[in-house]
Amino acid sequence: MASVSTYVPSLELVERIANGEISAIARMISRAEAGMPEAREALAEIYQRAGRAHVIGLTGVPGSGKSTMVSALAARLRATGSKVGIVAVDPSSPYSGGSILGDRIRMTDLSQDAGVYIRSMATRGNMGGMARATMDAVDILDVGGFETIIIETVGVGQDEVEIAKAADTTVVVSAPGLGDEIQAIKAGMLEIADVHVVSKCDRSDAHRTLTDLKQMLTLGVKGGKKSEWRVPVVGISSFDGTGFDELMKALEGHRAVALHSEMGRQRRVAIAGFRLTKTAENLLMERFARACAPLTLDFAQRLHRHEGDPYSLAGELVAASFGKE
Amino acid sequence: MASVSTYVPSLELVERIANGEISAIARMISRAEAGMPEAREALAEIYQRAGRAHVIGLTGVPGSGKSTMVSALAARLRATGSKVGIVAVDPSSPYSGGSILGDRIRMTDLSQDAGVYIRSMATRGNMGGMARATMDAVDILDVGGFETIIIETVGVGQDEVEIAKAADTTVVVSAPGLGDEIQAIKAGMLEIADVHVVSKCDRSDAHRTLTDLKQMLTLGVKGGKKSEWRVPVVGISSFDGTGFDELMKALEGHRAVALHSEMGRQRRVAIAGFRLTKTAENLLMERFARACAPLTLDFAQRLHRHEGDPYSLAGELVAASFGKE
Repeated sequence: MASVSTYVPSLELVERIANGEISAIARMISRAEAGMPEAREALAEIYQRAGRAHVIGLTGVPGSGKSTMVSALAARLRATGSKVGIVAVDPSSPYSGGSILGDRIRMTDLSQDAGVYIRSMATRGNMGGMARATMDAVDILDVGGFETIIIETVGVGQDEVEIAKAADTTVVVSAPGLGDEIQAIKAGMLEIADVHVVSKCDRSDAHRTLTDLKQMLTLGVKGGKKSEWRVPVVGISSFDGTGFDELMKALEGHRAVALHSEMGRQRRVAIAGFRLTKTAENLLMERFARACAPLTLDFAQRLHRHEGDPYSLAGELVAASFGKE
Repeated sequence: MASVSTYVPSLELVERIANGEISAIARMISRAEAGMPEAREALAEIYQRAGRAHVIGLTGVPGSGKSTMVSALAARLRATGSKVGIVAVDPSSPYSGGSILGDRIRMTDLSQDAGVYIRSMATRGNMGGMARATMDAVDILDVGGFETIIIETVGVGQDEVEIAKAADTTVVVSAPGLGDEIQAIKAGMLEIADVHVVSKCDRSDAHRTLTDLKQMLTLGVKGGKKSEWRVPVVGISSFDGTGFDELMKALEGHRAVALHSEMGRQRRVAIAGFRLTKTAENLLMERFARACAPLTLDFAQRLHRHEGDPYSLAGELVAASFGKE
């Protein structure tokens, strides 16, 4: 039996992942997250094998009840027999530190189910790295036999929203009492939704949020209709279970349309482009770090002595590493 | 009188900023945030003029009471006559959307004071861009006459923590009841503190957090003592005002030491290096975006057709833009 300290080459982990071994899945996600060069060949292999899961991107502003909803949704999906992976890219997520938001009880419920795997991604380094690692993690779970994978991102920041968009089906969560309808427009979040969810519909003011959102979609906010797919607005309550049947139908319905439509194909190409760009940015940053390492101290001292400004010196540093544009 | 739609060249804004014109400050920060090339010459000029303000980086995990503390601290600083700028790099910050966390009343109090300027940075694009824009915003406020500038970042994610570190004085906020002492170590946050704050000291369990933190510092966690400066642990309550006198003294004390010590000088060089790297990364990403734009669609289609994997194709894309390493 291998001890914990034994390093298993990444390529050897691939078969174990394909057999659904959770420890292998966890290890490989960690290696993807750390950007380990050794793992790349294995991740390339995993990419070639992936593509079966239904990947759901879920986003919403802080306080919209995303995490609670994800927990309730995961329980529903489990009831249909689907294995559910959750990848959280959200510093405010309760998964981040286990107990950060005092959500221990709920997470314990889910985490005792071997058919649910929850992974919180550390938002480290450049965001290209984050998007890349998240999509690698999704592939790893996909190959590991997770049939539904939910990427939860906080709906603040362009890259976080883009990560949620890089899924088969994107869900945008709004909530009453937050002025979310306005927040959502601001962040460009309305437009990316394939399914709108209004959470906390046990509250009396939820009706207003639902109506506002439907009205905005009717008024022609882009995204109200995407060729073959009419974007639904689903009211839910994670507290009493309202709306989850409808939500499940909406998710399945969108997936069916996306799988067999030109709209779906174009979107998958766009996601491939996003993924490629983020992976390339990540590789480029690594290369830049290597190239400029011997120069940085000298340049830093020059900047500190005000012999130049951040922009001119940074331009010189890039030119020294990659030549002039 | 200039209408709103008149575009004022960035270089012309510099003098207005130096005169403390808030509208010019706001405009220039927006241009820095957007990464407008036109603004760079002006930002270079601003960099040369900046350097008078006391820049305080403040970080802590979500729920540690950072924003409430910043508000209370700003009020104290105002009482000493100091103009206070607040730059929030925190998606969970109440400043982000004005009303997101229902913090309207408090923010209204502060925002009616012309001696306080609050700016929330959108976490957009690559994190190099975020760090660069934040440091530009600090310079702009500095030249605009703000004597104390607080950078508030959420203590999750390497770059957010590094931004808080890129200040004259770094404050790490912990709170009782969050298991923060562990969170802080995990995130590498303990080590960056020049001043530790334990918030919510009106709570009965705060004593324990204070004791734990002091013990950890005594036990030799790096950062307990930084050559000329002994890192204090200050218990505060933003609710009843406890500890703010001590906190003000600690901030001033650290500043005095940092200004005149070799430790302070080395740190300023390190900050210059960080700033330079982030600015360079940002410029490099822009250049890469231009270089790879004509190639991206073809590469995305190849990835979509599984003619290669994300890593090999990304490597090709980087090589096509910058040559082989």
